[in-house]
Amino acid sequence: WVDSANEPGCDFPIQNLPYGVFHHEDEDEDDARVGVAIGDMILDLSVIADAGLLEDVDADDEEDIEEDVSAPMLNLLMCSEPARWSALRRRISELLSDGNDELCGDASLMEDALIPMSEAVMVMPAEVGDYTDFYASIHHATNVGSMFRPDNPLLPNYKWIPIGYHGRSSTLAVSGTPVRRPLGQTKADDADPVYGPCKLLDYEMEVGAFVGRGNERGEIIPIDEAEDHLFGLCLVNDWSARDMQKWEYQPLGPFLAKSFLTTLSPWVVTMEALAPFRVASLPRESGDPAPLEYLSSKEDREFGGVDLTVEVYLSSERMRAEGMEPVRLSSGNFRHMYWTVAQMLTHHASNGCSMDPGDLFASGTVSGPEKGNRGCLLELTWRGSEPIELPTGETRKFLADGDEITMKGFCERDGYRRIGFGFCSGVVLPSVMATV
Amino acid sequence: WVDSANEPGCDFPIQNLPYGVFHHEDEDEDDARVGVAIGDMILDLSVIADAGLLEDVDADDEEDIEEDVSAPMLNLLMCSEPARWSALRRRISELLSDGNDELCGDASLMEDALIPMSEAVMVMPAEVGDYTDFYASIHHATNVGSMFRPDNPLLPNYKWIPIGYHGRSSTLAVSGTPVRRPLGQTKADDADPVYGPCKLLDYEMEVGAFVGRGNERGEIIPIDEAEDHLFGLCLVNDWSARDMQKWEYQPLGPFLAKSFLTTLSPWVVTMEALAPFRVASLPRESGDPAPLEYLSSKEDREFGGVDLTVEVYLSSERMRAEGMEPVRLSSGNFRHMYWTVAQMLTHHASNGCSMDPGDLFASGTVSGPEKGNRGCLLELTWRGSEPIELPTGETRKFLADGDEITMKGFCERDGYRRIGFGFCSGVVLPSVMATV
Ligand SMILES: [Ca+2]
Ligand SMILES: [Ca+2]
Ligand SMILES: [Mg+2]
Ligand SMILES: [Mg+2]
Ligand code: NI
Repeated sequence: WVDSANEPGCDFPIQNLPYGVFHHEDEDEDDARVGVAIGDMILDLSVIADAGLLEDVDADDEEDIEEDVSAPMLNLLMCSEPARWSALRRRISELLSDGNDELCGDASLMEDALIPMSEAVMVMPAEVGDYTDFYASIHHATNVGSMFRPDNPLLPNYKWIPIGYHGRSSTLAVSGTPVRRPLGQTKADDADPVYGPCKLLDYEMEVGAFVGRGNERGEIIPIDEAEDHLFGLCLVNDWSARDMQKWEYQPLGPFLAKSFLTTLSPWVVTMEALAPFRVASLPRESGDPAPLEYLSSKEDREFGGVDLTVEVYLSSERMRAEGMEPVRLSSGNFRHMYWTVAQMLTHHASNGCSMDPGDLFASGTVSGPEKGNRGCLLELTWRGSEPIELPTGETRKFLADGDEITMKGFCERDGYRRIGFGFCSGVVLPSVMATV
Repeated sequence: WVDSANEPGCDFPIQNLPYGVFHHEDEDEDDARVGVAIGDMILDLSVIADAGLLEDVDADDEEDIEEDVSAPMLNLLMCSEPARWSALRRRISELLSDGNDELCGDASLMEDALIPMSEAVMVMPAEVGDYTDFYASIHHATNVGSMFRPDNPLLPNYKWIPIGYHGRSSTLAVSGTPVRRPLGQTKADDADPVYGPCKLLDYEMEVGAFVGRGNERGEIIPIDEAEDHLFGLCLVNDWSARDMQKWEYQPLGPFLAKSFLTTLSPWVVTMEALAPFRVASLPRESGDPAPLEYLSSKEDREFGGVDLTVEVYLSSERMRAEGMEPVRLSSGNFRHMYWTVAQMLTHHASNGCSMDPGDLFASGTVSGPEKGNRGCLLELTWRGSEPIELPTGETRKFLADGDEITMKGFCERDGYRRIGFGFCSGVVLPSVMATV
């Protein structure tokens, strides 16, 4: 019965019901609690739990849904079993359905429980203990590899291991956080390195997966159980300083080139909402090795992929001043990844590494086989050699101060309502050196 | 007046006063609080704070030392200014000094406030939000580089950048935690990779630094202020699966080869206690570049080093069964590092990366110029080509199940009391695959 949820292009129909953490613009961050996106509104779960409308979600008294949804993070909810996630989802769906008036029949409750998105401030959906970034697009790995290591683009381990590295959880932030152009060491080919503002600032369009229940240290997560440990997906912008990355990354991997900011979309779309859009994992080309047994299951081969379209838009400061719409830089699909989310999670825990509720892993840049699928400027402009022209006549090899990057994601399939991810955006601010 | 603190070889004289988090063996982890090591006893700071003996540490009512020391982690104390750390340290020293009977004159308080170490369980000293591992020994980097990349041992960035990578905070644990031999992908030169128990398990002798006050995202930590942001040092064993590392580490760095367990010594030795042992940073050899300006200060050049001896001992299961003492594998010194702790911290924040109280960074393997200084088996046995003989006649290229590694650290200087770090130890357990 939320009308805006029924409009065709809406990201948040009743079939979606993604979770986020928000507070009203008049409140402060201490008041943040769990909400569900429905149309252009947010259903405040703490209010409906207080009103007793979620009482039947927990079969017994041992779990307390009210406490879980009143927390300023999704971590408590993430600890649950998938069955409890389903029960909560069913109940929310019921309350929002035509014909049910438990909520919409109570005007004063409605006033408290439904907040217009335009009046809400979204905060980080979870407290992320550890953040990992994978590298699961073979198209991205091959493109980048051929620039950084022309003689050796795709390393021999790529088709055997979901390659990843540990990231910096303290620099995760929610969509809307501006990105300050970082300072760092860079080196021109013919000169000594210097410390100064990054000149080759880039974004990376990635998909993030939140861990639900974790595993104990020393235990593994079998591939067949991996998805039971996943709470849901979001969009991730892994801002990257390419000139810093090139100079620092050997031999221990990217470090400061990535740890100045990583932005997340605020809504976490559950695995259950994505079920109609699951597709086969990327077929291995002939000659490619089969995944090792611990990374292999029939279920994952047949349904491990997600048919999720991801788009990147740019608007320069001048475009916004002149009232122009953002331009779309790329459109890719998450089904083109060489490794599935289940394979990434199982691999991550395959050495006994403990995963905790709220831990996040990102997929790596989502790039596909076509040029228009490339998920970062490094690839799109082929390291700056093919600049992009903007409608103002401006050109971009990498990001300029004032540029705003917006990422969108959505699943579409005939006969099903569109499931959207909302967006993940951020504006580039000048470096602190430029402002003093 | 704690007699054991006055014995010559004691790690914890009144000049040390390191902080840790503990509970009595009869209590559980919820009861953990802050203690200070003195001789073979632990001074329970929560008890003496409760008794009002720390009232003068905080000048006004805004800070609450009682709350800070009753927490099950050092993070609250770490948030303070160095001046408050000094005030607390001075007061504790006063209470433990001959001639002061505020504490030792009260028999019932004494009973509560001093717990024998033998009856205490040490837990993680801090909640570590993010963990970073550096690579600051040029001897280690050169040795390892020459094994992994014989044509190119020391990469061109090494003398410009304190190289580091993000680690996994969920797998940090306190001394005494056994290390389960991890499972992972390894690849022999002439075969496809396999998933199974690590065959080349190693330790790495490192020194860890805890961040005190942090910096805001987007801000930097100038080199001259870096040490004000450091709370103290501990010992770190960065357990490493060399065969997994070799196969997985390119191009994004070590991942699962390091994230199964990293062990910390429980006592954090403050920067103030280490003051008498500060030495010049490692002189740059002629031809080496000077550190860039942001990594350079007179103070850091003259006093950036720490004259800290670190030792590694091994005892095999058979050695312990036969009542033999552990054998010392190596003895190195932290003053041999190419980069100082201040340089590591300043570099880490130089891109605006936010550091939080309780964040930990480790130095990387502490290896020195001599063979006896090498801080891991990879170097000591030169990748297994020069096995070590144990007193039982057993030999070791890498670690065997049942081996116990113990790391020790101490500072000694004529005219000063020895400042010890206690120890960091762990026993190797068989992989889960071996036990099923
Ligand atoms: Ca990436
Ligand atoms: Ca190391
Ligand atoms: Mg990334
Ligand atoms: Mg390490
Ligand atoms: Ni972390």
